[in-house]
Amino acid sequence: MQRFRVTYRLRAASMAEATARAEGIALEQTVEIPRDVVPPGYIADEILGQVEEVTELAEGQWQATLSYSPDSAGDELTQFLNVVFGNSSIQQGIRVTGIDPGATMSARFPGPRFGIPGIRALCGRATGGLIAPVLKPMGLPPEDFAKLAAGCVRGGADIVKEDHGLAGQPTAPFRARVTAVVRAMRQAREETGRKTLYFANLSGPADQIEGNLRFLKDAGADGVLVMPGLFGFGLVQRIAADPSLNLPVMTHPSFLGPYVLAPDTGIDHGVMFGTLQRLAGSDISVFPNVGGRFGFTAAECQQIATACRTPHGPGQPMLPSPGGGMSVARAAEMQEMYGQDVVYLLGGSLLKDPDRIDQAIAAMRTALDASA
Amino acid sequence: MQRFRVTYRLRAASMAEATARAEGIALEQTVEIPRDVVPPGYIADEILGQVEEVTELAEGQWQATLSYSPDSAGDELTQFLNVVFGNSSIQQGIRVTGIDPGATMSARFPGPRFGIPGIRALCGRATGGLIAPVLKPMGLPPEDFAKLAAGCVRGGADIVKEDHGLAGQPTAPFRARVTAVVRAMRQAREETGRKTLYFANLSGPADQIEGNLRFLKDAGADGVLVMPGLFGFGLVQRIAADPSLNLPVMTHPSFLGPYVLAPDTGIDHGVMFGTLQRLAGSDISVFPNVGGRFGFTAAECQQIATACRTPHGPGQPMLPSPGGGMSVARAAEMQEMYGQDVVYLLGGSLLKDPDRIDQAIAAMRTALDASA
Repeated sequence: MQRFRVTYRLRAASMAEATARAEGIALEQTVEIPRDVVPPGYIADEILGQVEEVTELAEGQWQATLSYSPDSAGDELTQFLNVVFGNSSIQQGIRVTGIDPGATMSARFPGPRFGIPGIRALCGRATGGLIAPVLKPMGLPPEDFAKLAAGCVRGGADIVKEDHGLAGQPTAPFRARVTAVVRAMRQAREETGRKTLYFANLSGPADQIEGNLRFLKDAGADGVLVMPGLFGFGLVQRIAADPSLNLPVMTHPSFLGPYVLAPDTGIDHGVMFGTLQRLAGSDISVFPNVGGRFGFTAAECQQIATACRTPHGPGQPMLPSPGGGMSVARAAEMQEMYGQDVVYLLGGSLLKDPDRIDQAIAAMRTALDASA
Repeated sequence: MQRFRVTYRLRAASMAEATARAEGIALEQTVEIPRDVVPPGYIADEILGQVEEVTELAEGQWQATLSYSPDSAGDELTQFLNVVFGNSSIQQGIRVTGIDPGATMSARFPGPRFGIPGIRALCGRATGGLIAPVLKPMGLPPEDFAKLAAGCVRGGADIVKEDHGLAGQPTAPFRARVTAVVRAMRQAREETGRKTLYFANLSGPADQIEGNLRFLKDAGADGVLVMPGLFGFGLVQRIAADPSLNLPVMTHPSFLGPYVLAPDTGIDHGVMFGTLQRLAGSDISVFPNVGGRFGFTAAECQQIATACRTPHGPGQPMLPSPGGGMSVARAAEMQEMYGQDVVYLLGGSLLKDPDRIDQAIAAMRTALDASA
């Protein structure tokens, strides 16, 4: 068994205080009892977190690397996250800056099932950035979403993604909506010969999630959109690990903002929207793009894209998917920033003229190809 | 249908900027398209969030109250939270400071099934603070947890709660542990005539949660501990709403820290550890106590306790459960701060001498009763 490692950035006035804080984390995240009460043997030697290294980063900022036993997490991603940052998330001045699952946990959580080549093969886009328009707004009936989706196929979209807010609204219940969109997209695919994928937004009360997941698979959806901030990362892992579903997963950042927004607490952008998503098995990670309605910087977006695509794991590389603020005018700039292996979400700007959504998407394709 | 209301604290330089930010939230949290693209009629009039009021709180701080349609959330708590704060959680300078579900959503999410009188009746403690020792550390075998639990019953504990880190560790798999603890507590209850409740920590891969929940009910656990930060608030709601389970729920704050730690983003302490927990249907809300290992202030803990117990909802009042830093020496101080309707978690300090855990608990009971 190889222990997994977590790197934290700590606020502390001295090496002694930083080391004491690191030792506090080691206790807090595993046995949660005072050091002098930890039973000797297996619990003290194996289960208890171990402080591997403490180094100074800058005035008052320290980096601590801790290792944990695979036995503390078992084969549950939820419990793995509980060990990584459960209670320590509630303490000021502790930020997770890196997670190295190691060989043992990597075998338990092998990561994205499809990854970049898998998604490219499914949608038939061998090179270049992928275009993913979003079905919205909530409040439309199923036939309107279906019509939009068919237009997206005709325009050359690679993925049609549902808005993360499409749930069980009375105007378009989950099953009716999925059924209508699948039917319309099938017809448009047959007419055009395209392979545009449909990612349905998984929703429902907790005890209906399994049934809804099976439903969207059987109905013919090509992938699933999941919000780990609201449903838990364990749900992503459960889908990615299931060969009977064999469904690609796109993850959405809803409700996850507070983890990254404060520099001294929470989880680094790249870890939250890259490392953790890969570990859970997501194939495509949506995050707020620089220059859109959210305040992420170019450096934060680059950190995310790098974490999504580094060949060093966890698992195979996944596609970063910047959302917000994308337009034909920004295509060249975005392509320069993100390169080729990226999924561009296209949202509200497409809906100015819903009947011509195909033309808007085709224009984006042209702009991307021209600047490639 | 009555719209539900959410109050946000906004950072803005002027009334005009604050109003523009509020209108941005109204779009972001519902239709997620530019205002000039919102279809007229039902979507613009009903689905789109509405800015009800914007007022100045202090220099650069504003309060905005928005209302949303029950149709935007349907009957899914997850989607309700998605509307309250999904994407806006990722923007700087927005904090949720209040949620008023209104009559329609209150009927869909009726809140705690047991509440304060229900929990008191179940454990047979009509008055005074409740004592809840915690079974830990991870790494012990089931028989050691069972022995500790029996000692807790003999000492007069009201609730035996499992540590939130007890999951599927190989030393004590979920089902073996629950079975052993139930058996030992039954015997101790028969011997003592006490009614001490056992709250098992729900864990497992996502597709085994339903099975594990049914297992712990059938095995004879009296309640369930859930971490909404890792499993989602929808799981809490699903348990609370199920008459066939009829199980009280205790919620644990693991992984939720970043929501409250930064003053300008996230969710207020009372909303996160009070209002939201009640809305989901939790009967007992665990939070980090002032003076323990976490940095919550007395005012923040009071805000939480007030939100848990206010007669103004949502649903019936629940029990606040401060964890960390409780001791015989602090019993009088804690009782003065929290009053009678409170569950005191007792953790690591009890485990200095596991064979005499009954005496440690009895000493706490004496201290609480003496200062009542």
